[in-house]
Amino acid sequence: MRDAYVLGVSMTKFGKLLDKTLKDFAYETVWNVIRESKIDPHDIGIAFVGNAYAGVITGQESVRGQVVLRDVGINRIPIINVENACASSSTAFYLARNAVASGQCDLALAVGLEKLFCGDLGKSLAALSTSSDIEIEGRMGILFAGIYSMRVRAHMEKYGLTRQQFAKVAVKNHDNGALNPHAQYRNRVTVDEVLNSRMIADPITLLMTCPMGDGGAAALIGTKEMAERMGKRPVRIASSTLGSFGFTGKDEPGIVCRVSKQAYQEAGITPKDVQVAEVHDAVAPVELFLCEELGFCGPGESGRMIDEGVTWRDGKLPVNPSGGLSAKGHPAGATGLAQVAEIVWQMREEAGERQIRSVPHVGLVENGGGNVAGETAVVGVHILTA
Amino acid sequence: MRDAYVLGVSMTKFGKLLDKTLKDFAYETVWNVIRESKIDPHDIGIAFVGNAYAGVITGQESVRGQVVLRDVGINRIPIINVENACASSSTAFYLARNAVASGQCDLALAVGLEKLFCGDLGKSLAALSTSSDIEIEGRMGILFAGIYSMRVRAHMEKYGLTRQQFAKVAVKNHDNGALNPHAQYRNRVTVDEVLNSRMIADPITLLMTCPMGDGGAAALIGTKEMAERMGKRPVRIASSTLGSFGFTGKDEPGIVCRVSKQAYQEAGITPKDVQVAEVHDAVAPVELFLCEELGFCGPGESGRMIDEGVTWRDGKLPVNPSGGLSAKGHPAGATGLAQVAEIVWQMREEAGERQIRSVPHVGLVENGGGNVAGETAVVGVHILTA
Repeated sequence: MRDAYVLGVSMTKFGKLLDKTLKDFAYETVWNVIRESKIDPHDIGIAFVGNAYAGVITGQESVRGQVVLRDVGINRIPIINVENACASSSTAFYLARNAVASGQCDLALAVGLEKLFCGDLGKSLAALSTSSDIEIEGRMGILFAGIYSMRVRAHMEKYGLTRQQFAKVAVKNHDNGALNPHAQYRNRVTVDEVLNSRMIADPITLLMTCPMGDGGAAALIGTKEMAERMGKRPVRIASSTLGSFGFTGKDEPGIVCRVSKQAYQEAGITPKDVQVAEVHDAVAPVELFLCEELGFCGPGESGRMIDEGVTWRDGKLPVNPSGGLSAKGHPAGATGLAQVAEIVWQMREEAGERQIRSVPHVGLVENGGGNVAGETAVVGVHILTA
Repeated sequence: MRDAYVLGVSMTKFGKLLDKTLKDFAYETVWNVIRESKIDPHDIGIAFVGNAYAGVITGQESVRGQVVLRDVGINRIPIINVENACASSSTAFYLARNAVASGQCDLALAVGLEKLFCGDLGKSLAALSTSSDIEIEGRMGILFAGIYSMRVRAHMEKYGLTRQQFAKVAVKNHDNGALNPHAQYRNRVTVDEVLNSRMIADPITLLMTCPMGDGGAAALIGTKEMAERMGKRPVRIASSTLGSFGFTGKDEPGIVCRVSKQAYQEAGITPKDVQVAEVHDAVAPVELFLCEELGFCGPGESGRMIDEGVTWRDGKLPVNPSGGLSAKGHPAGATGLAQVAEIVWQMREEAGERQIRSVPHVGLVENGGGNVAGETAVVGVHILTA
């Protein structure tokens, strides 16, 4: 397998965008990455389109990628629709990278798109509930906040993390989101505001949860030569890994540990080498567990990390400088590629006001999706180097 | 890219199987291919699960593969849900082949599953209509029979193919299906019966159309060493190609010509080398056009082929010895892999009563899906050699 590089990256503004369609998101992001990458769009060899919920929200199933790429002008090449819940576009990225790394083609397009707002909250929640087994978890009526709440409480009991620490994650991510023009929420919040906001599933309060969202993101993956030719800092995909739930034993490392271990091995680095990360903070407390599971600190030590400022924008290892899911928003099928975009922008010093102080050479993306058999159904971890 | 081989193949009986679920189909076919391939299931490196309509029919979106593979015992590895209308499992096959051919892993699983019968015909038809752009073709209310009818009439006017010739395709495929224990329809029909059956969309009569169906199919793709070790005739994937609609000009070769041309080139063969084919006869007349587009004969010559018996089971180039979509049935997301299974069985002399006389060395699968911008949305062509 040869090295594959991220060329252009793009995301729309995330938010409640009732007047925008999946086609709008595809058009904007795909043409952005074509222009930025300085390639001929006819050279794109394959396209992977990730989406989780259009079947429920808009009714479009089965040929979503073909339908949205039609007006973009992408056709004739293989167009592959992938679904993997909130990790759908990480899956598209993973496959696009493999298509280039294997030499199957020189230029691959990855797109992630989602509409969740549709004027009917019940429908949006019904869509989200299809990311677990509808015959098992679905019938139990457990939504994501409930699942996370059980995990958070178990972790609190074991390691003593505090509600204040969880709230600080939300404060940090809203601080970052306030500087991100793509973010859904651009307001800052305080620890007190987070703790006093409406309780959703104890100890998770409203301001600790990520919003639903609409939006799109895209990336072009190409060869080293293309990356050098586009005139920006080349960003190499050092590894891109995907893994699934696995009936993990009580004392066994969970899915994020498993997948990230493989990602570190393939990239030839250790967690200590990571200088910036975008992780799947669907609820704020989870960002702390993820820091532990990704090896940024030991088990139970993530509370100290947020207390000591390590993961803040001016810290040693900024986590979610984009604002994360909490503030940037979470249009499920677009999230993974938006995370990739943020790391690339930070590496190319294109992150504007939220640019982290020391331009990173090594960045990590962690993106999770769904819930099956009591565990996240799918996790993608991508390591980029520049 | 190294050579990849088809190891075990499996399909369920196709039909109206109201008491069976997608999970049942996955369990049966995946364990069949594991046993047949003589591999350790823990060595499976990646799984691709194709399905088109579960979102509409059962309500399960987003993590369909994880949900059906949970009880099969396949987990932890990357599980990727792919959708490409009636070519969903061809897409799974294409990706599984590339995963092995690229050296990414040694053993890849491709699964295709569909439930279309659900006790509510309106719902089933609504599901099928999501394989075009629901905002364009969908709003026009055109179902597949209508789209095919326009193509068939244009072709009739240009080349003079007759209704009798179309009917003969249905007769041939029902003859083959009668010998196939997996087939949905096992009754023989006559030319008169076909022509006198209910008119669906002139000139397409009821017995020229394929039925809806439920069912599953699977294949394991592995290395040459694995293929040799399993003790059956090794079947090499000489090429696996996928292509999309493309605003094809009036006098330009269509999508099937484009994709098959690439498949022949990659396999290093010509249409003359093909000794058996499974093609996407969603309606019987289309099998004739496909023979032309695949280069089995010249434009307008396919009527003579069926008249002269070339494509019958004892002919020089048997087409759809399984019974094709017309008789074997068409559970959309399972069809591509069922077509692959038939070619493999014919190559291994495992096709029972419908075994063609001269055991083939070169076989071709053509599988289409959806309709976008007036053309089949996606076509997969796979060439197998033994």
